[in-house]
Amino acid sequence: MTPRNATVAVIGAGDYIGAEIARKFAAEGFTVFAGRRDGAKLEPLVREIEAAGGRIVARTLDARKEDEVAAFLDAADAHAPLDVTIFNVGANVNFPILETTDRVFRKVWEMACWAGFLAGRESARLMLPRGRGNIFFTGATASLRGGSGFAAFASAKFGLRAVAQSMARELMPQNIHVAHLIIDSGVDTAWVRERREQLWGKQALDNPDLLMPPASVAGAYWQLYQQPKSAWTFEMEIRPFGEKW
Amino acid sequence: MTPRNATVAVIGAGDYIGAEIARKFAAEGFTVFAGRRDGAKLEPLVREIEAAGGRIVARTLDARKEDEVAAFLDAADAHAPLDVTIFNVGANVNFPILETTDRVFRKVWEMACWAGFLAGRESARLMLPRGRGNIFFTGATASLRGGSGFAAFASAKFGLRAVAQSMARELMPQNIHVAHLIIDSGVDTAWVRERREQLWGKQALDNPDLLMPPASVAGAYWQLYQQPKSAWTFEMEIRPFGEKW
Amino acid sequence: MTPRNATVAVIGAGDYIGAEIARKFAAEGFTVFAGRRDGAKLEPLVREIEAAGGRIVARTLDARKEDEVAAFLDAADAHAPLDVTIFNVGANVNFPILETTDRVFRKVWEMACWAGFLAGRESARLMLPRGRGNIFFTGATASLRGGSGFAAFASAKFGLRAVAQSMARELMPQNIHVAHLIIDSGVDTAWVRERREQLWGKQALDNPDLLMPPASVAGAYWQLYQQPKSAWTFEMEIRPFGEKW
Amino acid sequence: MTPRNATVAVIGAGDYIGAEIARKFAAEGFTVFAGRRDGAKLEPLVREIEAAGGRIVARTLDARKEDEVAAFLDAADAHAPLDVTIFNVGANVNFPILETTDRVFRKVWEMACWAGFLAGRESARLMLPRGRGNIFFTGATASLRGGSGFAAFASAKFGLRAVAQSMARELMPQNIHVAHLIIDSGVDTAWVRERREQLWGKQALDNPDLLMPPASVAGAYWQLYQQPKSAWTFEMEIRPFGEKW
Repeated sequence: MTPRNATVAVIGAGDYIGAEIARKFAAEGFTVFAGRRDGAKLEPLVREIEAAGGRIVARTLDARKEDEVAAFLDAADAHAPLDVTIFNVGANVNFPILETTDRVFRKVWEMACWAGFLAGRESARLMLPRGRGNIFFTGATASLRGGSGFAAFASAKFGLRAVAQSMARELMPQNIHVAHLIIDSGVDTAWVRERREQLWGKQALDNPDLLMPPASVAGAYWQLYQQPKSAWTFEMEIRPFGEKW
Repeated sequence: MTPRNATVAVIGAGDYIGAEIARKFAAEGFTVFAGRRDGAKLEPLVREIEAAGGRIVARTLDARKEDEVAAFLDAADAHAPLDVTIFNVGANVNFPILETTDRVFRKVWEMACWAGFLAGRESARLMLPRGRGNIFFTGATASLRGGSGFAAFASAKFGLRAVAQSMARELMPQNIHVAHLIIDSGVDTAWVRERREQLWGKQALDNPDLLMPPASVAGAYWQLYQQPKSAWTFEMEIRPFGEKW
Repeated sequence: MTPRNATVAVIGAGDYIGAEIARKFAAEGFTVFAGRRDGAKLEPLVREIEAAGGRIVARTLDARKEDEVAAFLDAADAHAPLDVTIFNVGANVNFPILETTDRVFRKVWEMACWAGFLAGRESARLMLPRGRGNIFFTGATASLRGGSGFAAFASAKFGLRAVAQSMARELMPQNIHVAHLIIDSGVDTAWVRERREQLWGKQALDNPDLLMPPASVAGAYWQLYQQPKSAWTFEMEIRPFGEKW
Repeated sequence: MTPRNATVAVIGAGDYIGAEIARKFAAEGFTVFAGRRDGAKLEPLVREIEAAGGRIVARTLDARKEDEVAAFLDAADAHAPLDVTIFNVGANVNFPILETTDRVFRKVWEMACWAGFLAGRESARLMLPRGRGNIFFTGATASLRGGSGFAAFASAKFGLRAVAQSMARELMPQNIHVAHLIIDSGVDTAWVRERREQLWGKQALDNPDLLMPPASVAGAYWQLYQQPKSAWTFEMEIRPFGEKW
């Protein structure tokens, strides 16, 4: 790989999508700044990427704290110019409306929407003066559809989409690519597999065509990154070919 | 007017839309429970409605406080069964993303989305056991479109729409009509007239066909209320005939 | 009923929705001009409406023929000024793409989209000079969603929606109310009941809450007609309260 | 370039987008089957691509004729398995509703929607038996929005989108990637430049950031082609970074 003088910040660098984004961009020569609630959990990923010759910095980050987000992105930018921020914090929950507590509603919003606003704004603060950059947000089916039981999650994801869309309309003409990637299916994680098995039994896992491989999400982000500014996509939806929609 | 044994709760009973909703439902025989930040400001409306033979209770209400909202709706329901809740808290602001402070983003969300969630959930708590009711939310152009400078406002309005949609999908089959009324234009208020004049000069006020009369919003809510359950509308948009869209 | 000096033209006046629209508007004092493929089938409706003191003219009309549509609307307008046109021609079919013949695709389009264009344009021709009128179009779930097997039907309904939306943006500022009413469920007709029973057995008919009564569609059109021009709805969706969506 | 045993069929192979798609896929080793109303106009492109070592077959094709489309695709498939069909016939017109003649409305539909249905269905006929393939459709701003004066064009583009969406829902689970690419801006062609200059004067051409380079559209199609089936996009919109939307 050819190293680049550029950093990608991954906010919400979990074991699946976040890790694959880190692998992909590291393999393409970026310095990866990876932040998650418990940064220690990133150690295996750091070892793996460094063993492959890549560069990665792991940080503990509460994405809901303005000062932590600002400091995280400043540190990323100090290392090499912040070229890409990918916001990937998730918070999927499902409760009947009467069981949706204040605490849940607020926390889901803080994680999935408020933190995205902070990540977006603080990235724009660094990117606008140099007139270039990329700010990408991870969306879900619930970004477009409020289903029964999804008042908290859909409200946060709708809200994040509005942040992304407003930023896109303001910042794209200033040469900052803002995009919203909608994953319209379950993602293939241990947690999702377990939950499906609980709900529908072992046969729920028989069809591998219905879950999104995390690496494919990273691939979609890479496509967005590669687009020329003459043909930028703001919103792109991806789903496995077997998914009903 | 024939009095009904039914209460309508208006949360966000401001001088324009809220007041017109109160007038309309009072004229139709409902007891109106009107809540706003400073309940004292409702005095002239109370006098007017009572003079016309209507029934109205005015309350000071911080719609962002769970316990205040619950108490307000409990009081309404104690008076006569809570038949309709209309959530009408607004919070329109416009700032470039870098000037959208944490405080503004959070406050706009608390007023326009979080308070709507509380109003909706606490209404459902009272309505579900008796298997009937109506929960209506006021939307705006920004409920569907995130424009430049609207990260805070659109995010909150998108989020409110998701709350409404999720509640509709859960509660309509349980005989509770949940609706989201999108006002796709400026509303004819002193504040909007002033702002338009500042931005575009006196001629901005020459065309009265471009502002929505608050009484017409109340009329649209009345239409939603009158729909039979065999043909409920979840989402309806209204705009003055001269509006560009 | 008080007679009005106004005509409503119903294009696609079938036994269900069309007939109910005719009943409703006749009861409100309009002269009804009702057109359908075989006008003779309207005889019982004519007898019923006239017995109730209403006024109705039944005509055989191929809504796909420009000259027939123009003549039908001219005749309606000669009787009393054409105030409302409601386009209600349906053509629901479902075929896998390889079995969707040229003939089917073209015919469905001619019935559901092309005929709607003709009805809309010829109504506008009569309404624009006098600066008032209402042009309403019946939409369906397939107006917003192209499902498997629905290439022909959804294509025609999407196309009709575009006609309605383009006309609304051009004509509303000229005081003509153009609206698109989306019926997001099956309609309660003999044909739909039969088909559901074939597909899912007798129990498919056990839940009467899942089919839209034709009279409720007429009621929704009446709501649209009653809106003041300061708060016109372009698009409104209706569904029975038990419908999944 | 490494030749592939695969054909791409371009239906509507005009001088701009169609030609760039041909160049791109030829450069990637595909045999290009290019069809347009007057096949002779493809001669310079054929010479250019062949000089670069690529393979291309140019044909005169009326995309509105079922038998011609079937024969064109059969010939393409006989040459090497039909891997990709890209439907790119355009027909942008703008007329007030009263000036939208029957002839215009029908012709625009035949070119932009009906021909797309034929191209899609005939491609599916060849691709389904072998269980793989790609069918891509070119959309426009008018695929999502019916503007004043656009009854004919938007109706056709909405209709094409419904065809694409219905085919996607039916065929994606059978391993055929169906996608709809929305170009949300003017495309940089001589005709568009001329028209802008007429409408707004020379300065309308000063901002090159507002027109989509045809090669960027080809690039977007190439991205869609490269997606793994675990993460297919159905709909993707592209616009130049300076575009207002």
